[in-house]
Amino acid sequence: MDETLLMIPGPTRVAPRVLKAMSENIVNHRSAVFGKILKETNEMMSEIFQTENQSYLITGSGTAAMEAAMGNIVEKGDKVLNIVGGKFGERFMQITETHGGNPVELKVEWGEAVNPEDVRYILEEEENIKAVTIVHNETSTGVGNPIDDVGAIVKDYDALYVVDTVSSLGGDDVFVDGYNIDICVTGSQKCLAAPPGMAAITLNDDAWKVVDNTETSTYYLNMKKYQKSGAGQPPETPYTPSVSLMYAMREALNMIMEEGLESRIKRHKLAAKATINGVKALGFDLFAKEEVSSNTVTAIKMPEGVTDKEFRGTMRDKYRIELAGGQDHLKGNVFRIGHMGNITNREIITTISALEMTLKELGFDIDMGKGVAATEDTYLSV
Amino acid sequence: MDETLLMIPGPTRVAPRVLKAMSENIVNHRSAVFGKILKETNEMMSEIFQTENQSYLITGSGTAAMEAAMGNIVEKGDKVLNIVGGKFGERFMQITETHGGNPVELKVEWGEAVNPEDVRYILEEEENIKAVTIVHNETSTGVGNPIDDVGAIVKDYDALYVVDTVSSLGGDDVFVDGYNIDICVTGSQKCLAAPPGMAAITLNDDAWKVVDNTETSTYYLNMKKYQKSGAGQPPETPYTPSVSLMYAMREALNMIMEEGLESRIKRHKLAAKATINGVKALGFDLFAKEEVSSNTVTAIKMPEGVTDKEFRGTMRDKYRIELAGGQDHLKGNVFRIGHMGNITNREIITTISALEMTLKELGFDIDMGKGVAATEDTYLSV
Repeated sequence: MDETLLMIPGPTRVAPRVLKAMSENIVNHRSAVFGKILKETNEMMSEIFQTENQSYLITGSGTAAMEAAMGNIVEKGDKVLNIVGGKFGERFMQITETHGGNPVELKVEWGEAVNPEDVRYILEEEENIKAVTIVHNETSTGVGNPIDDVGAIVKDYDALYVVDTVSSLGGDDVFVDGYNIDICVTGSQKCLAAPPGMAAITLNDDAWKVVDNTETSTYYLNMKKYQKSGAGQPPETPYTPSVSLMYAMREALNMIMEEGLESRIKRHKLAAKATINGVKALGFDLFAKEEVSSNTVTAIKMPEGVTDKEFRGTMRDKYRIELAGGQDHLKGNVFRIGHMGNITNREIITTISALEMTLKELGFDIDMGKGVAATEDTYLSV
Repeated sequence: MDETLLMIPGPTRVAPRVLKAMSENIVNHRSAVFGKILKETNEMMSEIFQTENQSYLITGSGTAAMEAAMGNIVEKGDKVLNIVGGKFGERFMQITETHGGNPVELKVEWGEAVNPEDVRYILEEEENIKAVTIVHNETSTGVGNPIDDVGAIVKDYDALYVVDTVSSLGGDDVFVDGYNIDICVTGSQKCLAAPPGMAAITLNDDAWKVVDNTETSTYYLNMKKYQKSGAGQPPETPYTPSVSLMYAMREALNMIMEEGLESRIKRHKLAAKATINGVKALGFDLFAKEEVSSNTVTAIKMPEGVTDKEFRGTMRDKYRIELAGGQDHLKGNVFRIGHMGNITNREIITTISALEMTLKELGFDIDMGKGVAATEDTYLSV
């Protein structure tokens, strides 16, 4: 039996050479040997974040990095503008609250992107907003938010711009310095195609100034400690990191460097287009508005008359393709195809083909081959 | 060139079969397949903690688990008795403070164990102590604290008993239920001999009552979320876990089950005795009082007239054996030999032999073979 093909928005398929790197013998995490690996990996992270800032790797999930961002800049009573258009936007708001902050919520309809002018309006109206949080790629809804336009607005105000690129970095345009991002976080297991369990964060000088004047409310994720240990000779992490995941991360980032970040992002954009064209040709409706749909995950309305269990169950059990369900109130109403990481035209076409067969089998009147043809056309159009 | 032999108090040598398990393909962390692995691993953790409680695995270091303990039971102004006799005792106190607690510090001389009667004295004198923290095995000083006797005392008071067994669990006696421990934490990379990057925690009903009535000040380490996700069908973690490290953890715990926990602890006790007898025969002085010396790490005074760099450098560069240095004010004055995890008589004897050669080379007047003989005698005495 071959492996299940993960077409979910993380974790994504990990290349054999990355798995192999991960299984190397453990070394002392406070040795020159490990310091060199840490330094190389951090430097590649900064390159991928497209920033001159230092980056830091944290053993933990993307959520840990989101908390590392907020727990170091928010004190009791601090006002934070949280842009919330899905589960991960909500999470940023909950983390803000956990650390004593007072959220000002900018609600965005699930499936839509934020209107940058709404951000400007709130920043004009509300005084003393310390930070603005936004999720670049809202994994729960398949929406890509305009982090460039929002960044251009936040720049004019005295608030830090905190961006979650957990499911976009490496698969969509993220220019940390170019977009005026003060703090940017990401995870290992999405477009970077490393195994889950590592997160990364980068902070610029403006962010560090705030960190230095904030009483940190997290110990494990205290960024000042990461900064201090990271500046050591050899560079270290404050607490024992996952040595094995660091090996894997370095190898996964090496692969990105070999492919070239620009080519990789192009590949992701094309995969998104091919997926969208394929599912539309099969009669599916997208959940997110197409003009703001994500480059790395497509959310699709569940066809009428079929349950999530039948639909995704057939895809998984018969075709060994794992799709993601809907989250929270979208459970059962939406399914999601992740097309991130090492995904190529082969995996997209296989997935669209399996969708055709699954629909047919579940009693839908399907023009077999139509979805695959639309996908093929998309790939041939470039 | 063979690999460096890690004789440090974590990370420890990881068996090839564990490294192999870790390099399996990634699966969806919200699937039945992964749920089964998570459940099995959690259950083995409870068996090793020797408790009827549920255990939870966290992607992060042992420090993350220490914070998971305190961040869920401490609110602003809560009084906590922190027993501090080394770097990790201090860390528990710092974490208490990070979460708004008011530490009552019971200072213990570095190198000595806590006197349980001192704990009773403070619990009698101070009102409203919400929790008592203790580090079982103080990795920084090589001291094993009497967590059984302290537990018998704390039981008589209305305070939670929180025990760090990061560098002892799997290598020394830890009976979570038998010692009246309310919250116990550990790490993957010490006596459990898994790769670094995972931590575990277990809480009993008394602890959960406090957790339920505490406004949690950590998001990533919010134990209520772990409890809720862990009770799901399939069992899950609230945030994406390191799937690969979970594979490794399961395999490492399988190995403990095969060896038998009791045999494993005996092996560790003998390794400690053999190490101590070997270094004493070479004229080294122990840093910790011998009657309270740890079963998993031995702290030794640096011989006069030699620098840490020369001494540990020779051990590492010439004999490919990595020892740990001293921490904080012990830096340069102490070195530490970790004898935890998969360490057998072979590794202990190799290490003592390398110590003999290193001392000789650095100009000490050494009876070659004397240390090794004492080690051999110890192994033959059982």
